[in-house]
Amino acid sequence: MYQLYYYPNNASLAPHFLLHYMQLPYELVLVDKRTQSQKSPEYLKLNPAGRIPTLVDKGQAIFESSAICIHLCEQHPEHGLMPEMGDPARPLFYQWLAYLNNTLQAELMVRYYPQRHTNDPATIPHVVAAQDERIGDALAVIDDQLAKHAYLVGERLTACDFFLFMLAEWCLPVARSPLTFPNLARYLQRLAGHPTIAAVCAIEEMDLSPFISYVE
Amino acid sequence: MYQLYYYPNNASLAPHFLLHYMQLPYELVLVDKRTQSQKSPEYLKLNPAGRIPTLVDKGQAIFESSAICIHLCEQHPEHGLMPEMGDPARPLFYQWLAYLNNTLQAELMVRYYPQRHTNDPATIPHVVAAQDERIGDALAVIDDQLAKHAYLVGERLTACDFFLFMLAEWCLPVARSPLTFPNLARYLQRLAGHPTIAAVCAIEEMDLSPFISYVE
Repeated sequence: MYQLYYYPNNASLAPHFLLHYMQLPYELVLVDKRTQSQKSPEYLKLNPAGRIPTLVDKGQAIFESSAICIHLCEQHPEHGLMPEMGDPARPLFYQWLAYLNNTLQAELMVRYYPQRHTNDPATIPHVVAAQDERIGDALAVIDDQLAKHAYLVGERLTACDFFLFMLAEWCLPVARSPLTFPNLARYLQRLAGHPTIAAVCAIEEMDLSPFISYVE
Repeated sequence: MYQLYYYPNNASLAPHFLLHYMQLPYELVLVDKRTQSQKSPEYLKLNPAGRIPTLVDKGQAIFESSAICIHLCEQHPEHGLMPEMGDPARPLFYQWLAYLNNTLQAELMVRYYPQRHTNDPATIPHVVAAQDERIGDALAVIDDQLAKHAYLVGERLTACDFFLFMLAEWCLPVARSPLTFPNLARYLQRLAGHPTIAAVCAIEEMDLSPFISYVE
């Protein structure tokens, strides 16, 4: 039994998709961000970075959403969500997961928590405006890849697609929304209809209608 | 023969350490940042994100420094720079590499290129000041881990240590320098004396004296 320390529509969403997709036994443990539970002494013992998510696997705590995704894929290779060792697509899986994690996700964090990245609140609108542009630039790189391939790492679904779906949802309020990129928009519409994404987003009470109602 | 598209003391440094450590045949290809070569049409074909590094392995281009590091470790497991499949340390390797990549490195990028993260140049000092604090916070998490373990992932050297050394060097001019954290400082001093780090930093004309001359 896995324990996933989560908060709805947080970075725990990608591991949640994977646990559901692989039909693994798991338990959700709410880390209540509204009361800053991710900074509680108890939680910091599991995750010294004080962020969500953490996965506990047979007593071992693992943090960082992308690392949890890779771990689940490696523990359960029969589900095929990560190219196996020796497959030329494997380094591309790592490449795109890193790009999503250190670029799109990192830029989103600055966009949504700009007050952490300037010591003068008056300057916040300038940071947000710059971030909107940068997020659009990252989405453009992804859109180009999806012009050539059905999925981010090629022609089959991998954990990277679940990770991208999570981040794309976060991008909806951004000036250059993912739905303004045609290849990305079609891909997201397709993923929004995936049974795992539909089921997990229902559990986390997320609204998928912007993706589903997308019209080219 | 590997080709590493690099620039001195850029994100290519960690893969460069690994190529040297594993005694692999490799060729360095300079991507001249001074002339923005990383944005040239030719380079963008290899790396659509337009960043350094890219590794070319038998005609296949792989970008993202952390992905290249994992790829080299998986191709050459006999060097032991990454815990093998099934080792409980393996998910911790992914965890710390992700933390370095999406937190310490991402915060450093905002610190060194603040003009990209605000659309008003007058606000830049406020961004830099906030970043200096955030980088210190990330270094504190790492320092705590190094209080308990000889290396970032436990008691043996992994690719994460080479990655951390690269980032720590970038942190030297930051207000809360890595050398103000005692466990981290001792660890960096030790790594600065490693033959691979010494040799590669000599090739890239980097000055290791701040680490070597550290006195507790």
